Amino acid sequence: MDGLGDRPIPELGNLTPLEAAKTPNMDLLAKKGATGFTYVAGLGLTPGSDVGHLSLFGYDYHKYYSGRGPIEAVGLGVKLGEGDVAFRGNFATEKDGTIIDRRAGRLADSGPFAAALTGMKIEDISIEVKAGTAHRAAVVFRGPGLSPNIGPTDPHGPGTAHTSEPLDGTPEAIKTARILNAFHARASEILAALPENAERIKNNKLPANLLLVRGAGLYTHIPQFQDKYGMTCSCVAGGGLYKGVGSLLGMEVLEVAGATGKLDTDLNAKVRAVMAELDRGVEFVFMHAKGTDICSHDGDAQGKKAFIERVDEAIAPLLSVLDHVLVVVTGDHSTPCALKDHSGDAVPILFAGEGVRNDDVERFGERACVHGAFPSLLGLDIMKVVNIHLGRAPYMGA
Amino acid sequence: MDGLGDRPIPELGNLTPLEAAKTPNMDLLAKKGATGFTYVAGLGLTPGSDVGHLSLFGYDYHKYYSGRGPIEAVGLGVKLGEGDVAFRGNFATEKDGTIIDRRAGRLADSGPFAAALTGMKIEDISIEVKAGTAHRAAVVFRGPGLSPNIGPTDPHGPGTAHTSEPLDGTPEAIKTARILNAFHARASEILAALPENAERIKNNKLPANLLLVRGAGLYTHIPQFQDKYGMTCSCVAGGGLYKGVGSLLGMEVLEVAGATGKLDTDLNAKVRAVMAELDRGVEFVFMHAKGTDICSHDGDAQGKKAFIERVDEAIAPLLSVLDHVLVVVTGDHSTPCALKDHSGDAVPILFAGEGVRNDDVERFGERACVHGAFPSLLGLDIMKVVNIHLGRAPYMGA
Repeated sequence: MDGLGDRPIPELGNLTPLEAAKTPNMDLLAKKGATGFTYVAGLGLTPGSDVGHLSLFGYDYHKYYSGRGPIEAVGLGVKLGEGDVAFRGNFATEKDGTIIDRRAGRLADSGPFAAALTGMKIEDISIEVKAGTAHRAAVVFRGPGLSPNIGPTDPHGPGTAHTSEPLDGTPEAIKTARILNAFHARASEILAALPENAERIKNNKLPANLLLVRGAGLYTHIPQFQDKYGMTCSCVAGGGLYKGVGSLLGMEVLEVAGATGKLDTDLNAKVRAVMAELDRGVEFVFMHAKGTDICSHDGDAQGKKAFIERVDEAIAPLLSVLDHVLVVVTGDHSTPCALKDHSGDAVPILFAGEGVRNDDVERFGERACVHGAFPSLLGLDIMKVVNIHLGRAPYMGA
Repeated sequence: MDGLGDRPIPELGNLTPLEAAKTPNMDLLAKKGATGFTYVAGLGLTPGSDVGHLSLFGYDYHKYYSGRGPIEAVGLGVKLGEGDVAFRGNFATEKDGTIIDRRAGRLADSGPFAAALTGMKIEDISIEVKAGTAHRAAVVFRGPGLSPNIGPTDPHGPGTAHTSEPLDGTPEAIKTARILNAFHARASEILAALPENAERIKNNKLPANLLLVRGAGLYTHIPQFQDKYGMTCSCVAGGGLYKGVGSLLGMEVLEVAGATGKLDTDLNAKVRAVMAELDRGVEFVFMHAKGTDICSHDGDAQGKKAFIERVDEAIAPLLSVLDHVLVVVTGDHSTPCALKDHSGDAVPILFAGEGVRNDDVERFGERACVHGAFPSLLGLDIMKVVNIHLGRAPYMGA
């Protein structure tokens, strides 16, 4: 559950949403298993969802993360190679040099716009633009001597598009910023001349005459989950980022009808997909639910509580497979409703299944888990604990 | 509270002084907040007060500490530069080569004696001597090629002044020991000839005819607290060392009337100063109380208990500002009364204020805190946890 952890909330009687929620299934898992907390990106840091998920799966973000671009690109099906620099992009509307809509009037389909830009070559760099959902896209630079250490063209707010600046003095950063600025100019020209935009203007829609990018990241080869852990694995998620993480790690990313990555997501469909994957012998299944984080960012404690209750209900089928399945429940970070933003607070975690030692915790929640067997796991430690429970922690010595 | 942590003491019914003390205010803080323990200098080490305080504020002593001299010197208002080597000094009385009083008859004012010695130049090294309280002083060597890795001239006990020895074979250590020995000889000559000493002898007082030094430390630039944490900060302490740590870290060190750094200190005046600093918008206030450690070194468990009760009473005003102030209560090390010395035992810690998650601990004490949310914080972790509670833990990822 994204952004699961929270803080005591007066309107919930000083309980957290997880504590206030009726969660008989998770409580049963807590009671049967072992509980605790995780500092997902390490004590004292606030994880973004990308760094959070890499950490949960045991991937050190210092080594494998330089920006969100590559994850988003891979999530859209782009094949990245060593040294590629990828960006998150979104089509926007500019008028007289000012961005008047960062979503180009909530563009329904960015396909034709991405198609008009992809394949461009600037200096020795080839550029791929891949359409995402709605106004979103991924932009990939391929070629020698690129750096992710450059500023975005996306101001991520009102104003004008930024000129990208190198963030260090290396030739790579200087080159990449120069190419991004040239790409930005050429893309704007091409988009301005696009028949699809003339059509939009004719229909009183905002034209997609700008492609703003941010989240530059360098793709470096990342060991695939199956190679790292010796388990086949699938990903059941709605949100693009989470599918992207799954793709990046080589998980089989399922398309589940009704999994929207939003509050209206079909949690039962997702759990059915999980159960089907287990049935067909997949050894590790990652299921993600975004609603907790969405409510948190809105400061909606009641909504978060209600979403947690829906998740609890949906995961009931997992209770019947504990004889041969290890269930782990946690989140990628805390998002306290009071802050409407991520925080560094530890995230509750539980492990339940055959062979898991039992602690005295009988409830899944922030106060209860203080008394658990794993009071302070780093995110990078979680897969180690999974391995312990599965009896497959690597042997040292004889 | 300096040396706060302790061990069960038979005369207190096998409670620790903190457990035996009536501490309704700290108990309320514990009940409202989160508790635990800190290994201030790391598990398995016994922190000195200097290393302890540096650690509490998140400064790694491996990097920023080579001896107590620079802290004492800065605490006396000396301006240190990169590469200076500073010592703690004390004026003493020697007769026929033997130290007969390490405090020169509890010298009331070391000012004239320090003034007679400061400004000396030996080889290419300039020497500053700065008067401290009573018989105390700081000695600073300035110039190229100095090392703190030399022995003291202060035997720190009865006997004769030591000849300083280099503690490694580097030219820097050899040079620094040579200069210290030359300084010692010249200082003794100057002091012997000083009219103030003739006056003292005439009045049947012991002459201050020796300046003994110890605690050699190399000053290296230390990031200022405000730059490191983005918070303005003040220091409310009586003892010189604690003011020195505050100065070293760039805190505004307040002079509070009645703050003596001893058992007679005016704790209410100190808390009033804290509240005034908070009122005027200072973002971080460090308050130190020494009495706990003084009693511990005397093996006085009842005294320690009583001092803790006085602190508890004094901090009552903090309970009314928890809606916008995070209160942290802890110590720089344990000083078990039974040992009359510091130990490596973990020190109880509590965090209370808006946004702090609640654990089940309702009492501030060594047994109770075992059940707290932070069972084993390193000293260097404490400011990370402060940042978490304040919602300002640095963001990793997006």
